[in-house]
Amino acid sequence: MSVETICALATAPGGALGIIRISGAQSLEILSRIFSKDLVNVGPNTIHYGHIVAPSPLGEEGRGEVVDEVLVSVFRAPHSYTGEESAEISCHGSRYILNKVLELLVRQGCRMALPGEFTQRAYLNGKMDLTQAEAVADLIASTNQATHQVALSQLRGHFSSKLAQLREQLLKLTSLLELELDFSDHEDLEFADRSELLSLSKEIDTHIAKLARSFETGQALKQGIPVAIVGKTNVGKSTLLNALLKDDRAIVSDIHGTTRDTVEDTIDIQGVTFRFIDTAGIRQTQDTVEQIGINRTYATIDKARIILWVVDSEPSNEEINELLQRTENKKLILVKNKADKANNNSYRMLNLPSVAISAKFGVGIDELEKAIYEAADIPALTDNDIVVTNARHYDALTRSHDCIQRVIDGLQMQLSGDLLSEDLRQALDTLAEITGGQITPNEVLGNIFKNFCVGK
Amino acid sequence: MSVETICALATAPGGALGIIRISGAQSLEILSRIFSKDLVNVGPNTIHYGHIVAPSPLGEEGRGEVVDEVLVSVFRAPHSYTGEESAEISCHGSRYILNKVLELLVRQGCRMALPGEFTQRAYLNGKMDLTQAEAVADLIASTNQATHQVALSQLRGHFSSKLAQLREQLLKLTSLLELELDFSDHEDLEFADRSELLSLSKEIDTHIAKLARSFETGQALKQGIPVAIVGKTNVGKSTLLNALLKDDRAIVSDIHGTTRDTVEDTIDIQGVTFRFIDTAGIRQTQDTVEQIGINRTYATIDKARIILWVVDSEPSNEEINELLQRTENKKLILVKNKADKANNNSYRMLNLPSVAISAKFGVGIDELEKAIYEAADIPALTDNDIVVTNARHYDALTRSHDCIQRVIDGLQMQLSGDLLSEDLRQALDTLAEITGGQITPNEVLGNIFKNFCVGK
Repeated sequence: MSVETICALATAPGGALGIIRISGAQSLEILSRIFSKDLVNVGPNTIHYGHIVAPSPLGEEGRGEVVDEVLVSVFRAPHSYTGEESAEISCHGSRYILNKVLELLVRQGCRMALPGEFTQRAYLNGKMDLTQAEAVADLIASTNQATHQVALSQLRGHFSSKLAQLREQLLKLTSLLELELDFSDHEDLEFADRSELLSLSKEIDTHIAKLARSFETGQALKQGIPVAIVGKTNVGKSTLLNALLKDDRAIVSDIHGTTRDTVEDTIDIQGVTFRFIDTAGIRQTQDTVEQIGINRTYATIDKARIILWVVDSEPSNEEINELLQRTENKKLILVKNKADKANNNSYRMLNLPSVAISAKFGVGIDELEKAIYEAADIPALTDNDIVVTNARHYDALTRSHDCIQRVIDGLQMQLSGDLLSEDLRQALDTLAEITGGQITPNEVLGNIFKNFCVGK
Repeated sequence: MSVETICALATAPGGALGIIRISGAQSLEILSRIFSKDLVNVGPNTIHYGHIVAPSPLGEEGRGEVVDEVLVSVFRAPHSYTGEESAEISCHGSRYILNKVLELLVRQGCRMALPGEFTQRAYLNGKMDLTQAEAVADLIASTNQATHQVALSQLRGHFSSKLAQLREQLLKLTSLLELELDFSDHEDLEFADRSELLSLSKEIDTHIAKLARSFETGQALKQGIPVAIVGKTNVGKSTLLNALLKDDRAIVSDIHGTTRDTVEDTIDIQGVTFRFIDTAGIRQTQDTVEQIGINRTYATIDKARIILWVVDSEPSNEEINELLQRTENKKLILVKNKADKANNNSYRMLNLPSVAISAKFGVGIDELEKAIYEAADIPALTDNDIVVTNARHYDALTRSHDCIQRVIDGLQMQLSGDLLSEDLRQALDTLAEITGGQITPNEVLGNIFKNFCVGK
């Protein structure tokens, strides 16, 4: 295991401040060589004002070039993020300064950190398990309330606790099976044990299957739920989209430079992101096509999970049939626009959720958002709900589920205990993979942490 | 003067960490309402681990939504950047989290800070003068050693000290003038005093004029010194440019995402940035034009301060004459390329600095860089050299210089002291404007700080 002292820029370049992070046994010795104050014996969680000074080429004491006025925060092992001796240097956010300080640290013996290496050390030093480490990356990437809540819950160990509880039950199952093996001469005992084993196996499997199923929700939360707006020309699709986007306002003006690229054509409803897909394509159809049935629109419908079908008068039977046929397995919401003009009561009752709105005057938008949220069918998340968002976890849960399924089948087929124990052991190991409770190969660790940002 | 508590994101969004800064009398009260620990009575320069918690809508104690695990650094007045009670929250760098924390702070009574408002408060609270405040913005914007050094020197008060010294001399001049007025009956005293006054005035003016002149260097350092590469087709201009760019490498790999846009076609030589201007245009000439004299190239030459004239054989008299004529007032360097092939000794002696290189094999590039640096004629800067980089300072210095010139003229024309004192007073006031020693109108302050980044 590496004992090198590592350094990295932990903030994005370009702000007023830039934070450089250092971790490793030599952190304070190395930093003291380029700082105007000796930090080797300072107390934990203290802040020190001083100068970063490039050592003089001639080695003259106090004659080096001053690089910046900084604040240094000192964290002492084991009470730091990584569990190691570490420090954070708060510099002026100039690229020149940040590169210069990193260069000085490297010259004094630090190594530039790999992506995720601070968190990897936190994991290796027992400060967190793998699911928590992965939650750190998810938390940084979170863009809405739902993904944020899921990541934070995972960081705080809720998923780990759930897994620990499942492993405990699996261990109980294992010991019951061993008990059965010990008493295998007593034929009269067997049946009672078997039914208990079976019921316990099924209970464990229910939980694991539920976790695995939550991955679908997790993916939807992470990527945003795709929504398509379709309808004939001039029914007000663009106006509706604008009304929805406009309604998604924040109390705090968005952080400079972060907004338009990322949130364009997405809205958050109750903390869940909805993504309006390929709407440019749909908008174009207004110019060229009079009917709903063009290929481009259908391609959009295929990618969507929710379809907003905008009408401004009662749709014809032909339109109804075509649309219903094209949107099988999709959530369809009939949006009766121009409610200020039309008499919506004249619509036939279609067996669809429908909302009457006026996109132009912003009427009914709240109700429509509620309908969109309901159509997404996201289970209400509380702080303690676990949603699997990580493909590695999903994969392990699925494999664990398969193992338990084999145990259940075996129990039902009256296979002997020794034939089941291998599957049980594998189910246990597979769950342990998730938190890293088993020894995790370096290659797997490398894969997990390589997608982190540098400096975390 | 405002006593509101302000908050802002102090780092660029998108990193592993994001720092939110709070300043104002209510900082710790407000922060404590959304932090898992009461910070009102904690010591200065301490770091606190805890959770940012959105207060429960129902007001239930300890039941709010956890927003992030954070570290809070606490600074107590007057020993903080702004001189006020203040704190920095180190959050996970998710945009959702950072916006959420800012939103919570605003709901609890903070106001979003204006650009530069933290530094403006530092100025208003006497933590720094205006030149130092301006140096903060320059330091953050610094991209090379020279601009960095100038900004840091200014932040550390070297310019302020120089101005204080000049004001002291001006005050001495004023009191000598008053002495003269007091003794104006004694005609025999006058001539001695006048010559002393004149010599002191001239000395002061020399210093002020030197400071004003340094603005040219300051501008060159800030914007990079424009260099044009000219020469006939196939003499190796592109190869030379690539060789120069390639040579400009750093020990630390550049911070991710910061490099190509900003440093494209610039190189740093001894900490000074040289900018290759409009080279795309010049490169095109290789395809279309056989001779040097096209308008595009001349436009480039007009914008450049240094011209690299690349040749691979002895230039014709015609070429020489045309180029020399076109590059009056420019620094011209004759670059004798393909030194590996040609016999450079056969070149006639032109009265020009010249360097023999092989762009292809990277030979002579160091020597060429040295010649470019010398041509730039940047005075060697030591830590204590003052270079004016700010147009506001230059303007005030120029006006002050004009005042002193009028004083000098007046002294030489034997004007009476009371006619000179107004100009002297104006020279003093104008210098005082630079550091903000005079009461500075809000409008001027607003102009100074509006160009800062938010969070500083």
